[in-house]
Amino acid sequence: MTSSPDLAVIGGGQLARMMQPPAVALGIRLRLLAEGPDVSAAQVITDHVVGDHTNIDDLRAAVEDAPVVTFDHEHVPPEHLRTLADEGHACRPGPDALLFAQDKGDMRVRLSLLGVPCPVFEVLDVEPGDAVDDLADAMHDFGYPAVLKTTRGGYDGKGVWVVRSPEDLAEPLAAGRELIAEELVDFRRELSALVARSPSGEVRTYPVVESTQIDGVCAEVIAPAPDLDPALEAEARGIAERIATELDVTGILAVELFETRDGRVLVNELAMRPHNTGHWSIDGAFTSQFENHLRAVLDLPLGPTEPRQRWTVMVNVLGGERKDLAAGRDAALAADPGVHVHLYGKDVKPGRKVGHVTVTGDDLDDVLQRARAAAVTVRS
Amino acid sequence: MTSSPDLAVIGGGQLARMMQPPAVALGIRLRLLAEGPDVSAAQVITDHVVGDHTNIDDLRAAVEDAPVVTFDHEHVPPEHLRTLADEGHACRPGPDALLFAQDKGDMRVRLSLLGVPCPVFEVLDVEPGDAVDDLADAMHDFGYPAVLKTTRGGYDGKGVWVVRSPEDLAEPLAAGRELIAEELVDFRRELSALVARSPSGEVRTYPVVESTQIDGVCAEVIAPAPDLDPALEAEARGIAERIATELDVTGILAVELFETRDGRVLVNELAMRPHNTGHWSIDGAFTSQFENHLRAVLDLPLGPTEPRQRWTVMVNVLGGERKDLAAGRDAALAADPGVHVHLYGKDVKPGRKVGHVTVTGDDLDDVLQRARAAAVTVRS
Repeated sequence: MTSSPDLAVIGGGQLARMMQPPAVALGIRLRLLAEGPDVSAAQVITDHVVGDHTNIDDLRAAVEDAPVVTFDHEHVPPEHLRTLADEGHACRPGPDALLFAQDKGDMRVRLSLLGVPCPVFEVLDVEPGDAVDDLADAMHDFGYPAVLKTTRGGYDGKGVWVVRSPEDLAEPLAAGRELIAEELVDFRRELSALVARSPSGEVRTYPVVESTQIDGVCAEVIAPAPDLDPALEAEARGIAERIATELDVTGILAVELFETRDGRVLVNELAMRPHNTGHWSIDGAFTSQFENHLRAVLDLPLGPTEPRQRWTVMVNVLGGERKDLAAGRDAALAADPGVHVHLYGKDVKPGRKVGHVTVTGDDLDDVLQRARAAAVTVRS
Repeated sequence: MTSSPDLAVIGGGQLARMMQPPAVALGIRLRLLAEGPDVSAAQVITDHVVGDHTNIDDLRAAVEDAPVVTFDHEHVPPEHLRTLADEGHACRPGPDALLFAQDKGDMRVRLSLLGVPCPVFEVLDVEPGDAVDDLADAMHDFGYPAVLKTTRGGYDGKGVWVVRSPEDLAEPLAAGRELIAEELVDFRRELSALVARSPSGEVRTYPVVESTQIDGVCAEVIAPAPDLDPALEAEARGIAERIATELDVTGILAVELFETRDGRVLVNELAMRPHNTGHWSIDGAFTSQFENHLRAVLDLPLGPTEPRQRWTVMVNVLGGERKDLAAGRDAALAADPGVHVHLYGKDVKPGRKVGHVTVTGDDLDDVLQRARAAAVTVRS
């Protein structure tokens, strides 16, 4: 490459991959730190370095000459982020913000201090090597049922357990990590509020969506969330904006929320990057979350977040029986040429996110049925 | 790269570049033959070979393991296309079709035989080395005014001259190429009809658009063409479909048309690839011309070509005073964050196509004004 990159992206998964189409359009040159020479994003980003995001020298090689650095995931060690920042690279989001996406204990404490509604929680006083009885003691006041989570390293339902009695504690303890206990929320459904925020403070929120999880993995998203009380939608957007601003998040912030049966919203999780619950925006919003992430981290004006039509449904394609996803894509397009099929260039493993499909339209039932049918066709 | 490509693309200009975003989404692996290591498309297509499209060995290196080959331009010598086809690569469009996009004389004769309305024309009986008097003799019956064109190698107004008397003949003659004379059409405006066609014969036409040329270069496109008589629109779409089918074109065919003052359409030029008059479809149509080109040449079902809103205006960004187009992009987004700015990663040269902007909306005057303003801001 003869030109230096405008932006380094750490991590070569599908989120980095999906940053490339808007980067191509806008003339933004990406350089990627990829886990391997043919991972999802390395297939489509010419200028890439193969290395390990926990190795500072690999990180340095990837960000060389790049004024700004952003991320496909939240797993870069905070001390390395500080080193990169000290060496003149703007990390967006920055290490101080990312901490709250990396550590659920710190996140809960900080959000509670901000007065953001969260489930009741307690960071548990147990350490690696403690016995089940020690964890049972730590849980004594909190009580059951509860949700136990590792404060770090969990994703897609990993590192999360519902515990109904002390007998359920062995598995969470075996994770060998710090644990947080949270109220098991009686929720009506899960919502997600996405916001893009730039370093100069511009903020744009997307319409709040409904997301359905299966086994802790996002399965399906309806945008906008059907029949959502306008006051609750405004509250959810306000919460996302407030968190982005107070935590000084740059780029996309995804706030996953519970809508409780008694009509409240509670923050479940935060992600500081484009998020699965925002994939609908590629085909369904005026500016996709990936384009607004690029615009935000490069401190460009943000684009409109309005939907382009009444309904958009996104259904994930998880690895199933079919190994040749291109054949699945072709079958889905043959059955319904109006669906948008997205493949991530990943090897198929059971349950792995390997693609998604999107359908837009005016009739929600029709759109839902078409999107679900297409996802099944791609995977099986 | 560990996987073989699904599709080889010959030529590394902006058209190849703009094939990459839909290829990323659909999981289609492209391999590029690029004129240099950092040309427009090579910046964004990881798997590329640097070489010359007139050299059969370079072509062979680029298409190795690729079952299908397509093109960023029409300049690959027909004998090389036949060699690639003989060696088992499906060229789409194929050499027999491409001939009619490469040679305006052959195109006029063939379209006339099909009964497609064209300007009156005559392939002139002059040869390289002939004198102006010889050309004047050849023009005697055709008369003046006329348009002279080189039958091969012209583009963007190059190789086209309006001649009003024998005194104007020296310049066309100096081109040293075969010439065709055409009627100087008294047109109301220029239209363009795009059609995607797959090898299995599926055909989808885009709404007919109005295009404005300045000095022979496409300056601006309005989709759909305002106030177009529905019967004339149907005729234009029918002409495009008919040409695509009769000439066995695969991929996108662009048919540039004159709308005459007396209410007819006449075919001006053909292009067998995504075309400048279809760039509006990236942001304005349900399926962009680039996605449908990929789907067509790979014989996948074609996507819907309907517009996504009432009006879309595309204005080209031609090289001007500003050398740093990223700064122009940022200024345009700051002035109007709702415009879609596309940059091609090319060095700025006066008049060179270096990007385009698109605006969509319900009010044509507003959309036109915003798109024109944004293009001016990007370039100057």
